[in-house]
Amino acid sequence: MNVPPVCYSHKRNRITDSPISYFMKMALENPHLISLAAGLVDEGSLPAAAIARATDSILGNPATAKAALQYGTTQGNASLRDRVLRHICAMDGVTPEAINLSANDVVLTTGSQQLLYLVGEILLDPGDIVITEAPSYFVYHSLLQTMDVRVLTVPMDGEGMDLQALEERLHHLEKTGQLDRLKLIYTVDYFQNPTGLSLSTPRRQKLVELAKRYSTKHRILILEDAAYRELRFEGPDLPSIKRYDETNEFVISSYTFSKPCAPGLKIGYGLMPQELVGPIVDLKGSHDFGSSNFSQVIIERLMQTGEYHQHVEELAKTYRRKRDAMLAALQSNFSDWPEVRWTTPAGGLYVWLSFPESINTGPEGTLVGKGVEEGVLYVPGEFGHVAVEGNVPTNEARLSYGVVTVDRIPEAIRRLRRAADQLGLSPQPLESAHQPELVG
Amino acid sequence: MNVPPVCYSHKRNRITDSPISYFMKMALENPHLISLAAGLVDEGSLPAAAIARATDSILGNPATAKAALQYGTTQGNASLRDRVLRHICAMDGVTPEAINLSANDVVLTTGSQQLLYLVGEILLDPGDIVITEAPSYFVYHSLLQTMDVRVLTVPMDGEGMDLQALEERLHHLEKTGQLDRLKLIYTVDYFQNPTGLSLSTPRRQKLVELAKRYSTKHRILILEDAAYRELRFEGPDLPSIKRYDETNEFVISSYTFSKPCAPGLKIGYGLMPQELVGPIVDLKGSHDFGSSNFSQVIIERLMQTGEYHQHVEELAKTYRRKRDAMLAALQSNFSDWPEVRWTTPAGGLYVWLSFPESINTGPEGTLVGKGVEEGVLYVPGEFGHVAVEGNVPTNEARLSYGVVTVDRIPEAIRRLRRAADQLGLSPQPLESAHQPELVG
Ligand SMILES: Cc1ncc(COP(=O)(O)O)c(C=O)c1O
Ligand SMILES: Cc1ncc(COP(=O)(O)O)c(C=O)c1O
Repeated sequence: MNVPPVCYSHKRNRITDSPISYFMKMALENPHLISLAAGLVDEGSLPAAAIARATDSILGNPATAKAALQYGTTQGNASLRDRVLRHICAMDGVTPEAINLSANDVVLTTGSQQLLYLVGEILLDPGDIVITEAPSYFVYHSLLQTMDVRVLTVPMDGEGMDLQALEERLHHLEKTGQLDRLKLIYTVDYFQNPTGLSLSTPRRQKLVELAKRYSTKHRILILEDAAYRELRFEGPDLPSIKRYDETNEFVISSYTFSKPCAPGLKIGYGLMPQELVGPIVDLKGSHDFGSSNFSQVIIERLMQTGEYHQHVEELAKTYRRKRDAMLAALQSNFSDWPEVRWTTPAGGLYVWLSFPESINTGPEGTLVGKGVEEGVLYVPGEFGHVAVEGNVPTNEARLSYGVVTVDRIPEAIRRLRRAADQLGLSPQPLESAHQPELVG
Repeated sequence: MNVPPVCYSHKRNRITDSPISYFMKMALENPHLISLAAGLVDEGSLPAAAIARATDSILGNPATAKAALQYGTTQGNASLRDRVLRHICAMDGVTPEAINLSANDVVLTTGSQQLLYLVGEILLDPGDIVITEAPSYFVYHSLLQTMDVRVLTVPMDGEGMDLQALEERLHHLEKTGQLDRLKLIYTVDYFQNPTGLSLSTPRRQKLVELAKRYSTKHRILILEDAAYRELRFEGPDLPSIKRYDETNEFVISSYTFSKPCAPGLKIGYGLMPQELVGPIVDLKGSHDFGSSNFSQVIIERLMQTGEYHQHVEELAKTYRRKRDAMLAALQSNFSDWPEVRWTTPAGGLYVWLSFPESINTGPEGTLVGKGVEEGVLYVPGEFGHVAVEGNVPTNEARLSYGVVTVDRIPEAIRRLRRAADQLGLSPQPLESAHQPELVG
């Protein structure tokens, strides 16, 4: 019998598989590979013992067990909402009232990814414009593509998003009558995925001012993706962008427990203008009417006992050691090659590596394959870019020290150098054994 | 300063809050109320001890702890996907191969609600048609409204969806050139929410035949929502609709651990044609790239040890006792009123009660308020209906014995009768104290 085809929605035709699924598959199929590509977290420091204590105590008491295993609410556990609000405000050194926030302005979600999706769904129509950093979090780019949104990008420098370039963009949109399609400015403002860069303090305030200034007919909202904020191992904690939105009208802040606690629990949260809460919660009512309540109650317990905060402190030390190992390995393997440069993140999970332009790090290039041969995986920098106007750089790579153990980092970077050497463009191969014909 | 308004998406304007949020609020604010409205599950039987054993064993071993607390995959834990596949096929008395299913055709989601949403998103464009039973699961109706879909309904009888009426609908759509907009037929085929009715075995096979017969140019898919299948306390287990889709091309089956295990874990799953898996998983990549991995690993453990199956067996007995209590209370409180009728569910959580047409059970009627005064809440039957052509019945009510304790059920039904008596339309008030002027 001839079975007629499934007739998909228009949206389905805009959905693509994750660009890194190929790399995930690679890593699974080649266990000898050292993956600097995976967005996974450090496994040795996952707070298994603290979570075991929490589950025992929750499940050992009939009342708390019932509350944890029953359905929760769509907006999320009220006590956890209150705790995260106070937690964020404490980091910012303000009271919730001072920036017009209450636990009613908090929504708990299935990781912060779900918050990004829900925000997109209630705000964005096909053809609307979102401004992001170049490069930016590639899963967010897929999300915007699914929603048929126009992405405009703004370059970054050592202080994060270049606000002068942003202002030019805004001005140009205004002049060309397109400002009414601009709904969101998205920024990963702490130890960005993929570059490791952060938005400087002066720019935080300025960004809010810019959004306000250009909100002439409708509100241009800022989506502050602070996923990595708590993984800080150096320097002072920068105030959130939200902190400068004192009336709680322009900034949606997105946080997660995946990075600072445990991604297996998959709980994130947003702080947002009150008028967005209703639409987001109502929409979430159709998505799932509430993320795992058990996960929420576990996290609530960890915050209550103080174990969450202790854990984050320890974790930052772990990642600092890993970052140090990676920077040292880059230094010893690439210092003879001055055109190769990398960022020095003060937190988070990523180092951004730039090769000379002649080296193509992308899926079409040869480095990635040579890397697999040598036994190392990275994420091509291309995946963090969108082709808006002109070309995207093809000589960058995201290196993550998230899941790789600290002792394997030097070998991973050695392999990367060996792979690069095979392209015949490096100043001098460090290991001649592999490519003797290139020596001398 | 005058702040300009947020400019929402078109979708946002179609999102409404849950019709029962009013009732939830009521119940919270009036703790003396007995709620037969809540869709919550029995709390005394939640498997807290089994889950505590599972978490201890998972978290007590470093390897399993890491695997559970790390990110999982977007499609979901492979071992759990395999187990649920074999579990469902065992209930159906077939091998997975016999109906062309493998663990690759299974997707794990944040409750089965998320599966319903994802299926809708990849299939439905505004203006597309979905056929549902009348009445049906009201959260699904909200979801369809959010997606701007046209809902056509088919009445039910004691054997579930009336397939003759369905065939007439299909025939009419074909004749009027609208068949190409019909994407899905949605049925809650086991102990339906809200009526408690099930689709009879002969109709299951017939439904698949009808979908095939009318799939002339594109495929008309059946979405089998089997959320309550395992909560069966009477009669044989009916084969799934999926069981008759031997080539795995026409039926998406949706299941959940919320009802038979613990809604706090919020894990559901779908078995579906292979070609839908890619689009669903890719879309889920933007939603959250995976539901709580910890919840999945806990459930996997419960299935592995056999505790899941033991639990379901015990749970069915609990709900049977509660159903019996509710039927007995209805009998003793309403048997003098022959126009009041109710269903006798063989599983699930719901009894469907019909009053004479003169009694308005809806949010605009007086019974609901009198119920609150007397201290009992139900869900107005109206919420399960969509106004398609003509009026929807306003004399029905969904009574749930899910969360109410068995000892309070008689009092809840007594209160309902007292509330009904206050409308002055019942044959004779059972309790004269409240309404002396109506007596005699
Ligand atoms: C910048 C950024 N935002 C959001 C997320 C989403 O993570 P989760 O949904 O686990 O919170 C990630 C995950 O890698 C990320 O890198
Ligand atoms: C018919 C039906 N389908 C699906 C669901 C979704 O439940 P969950 O997402 O917890 O699996 C429910 C919940 O009440 C339901 O009644």
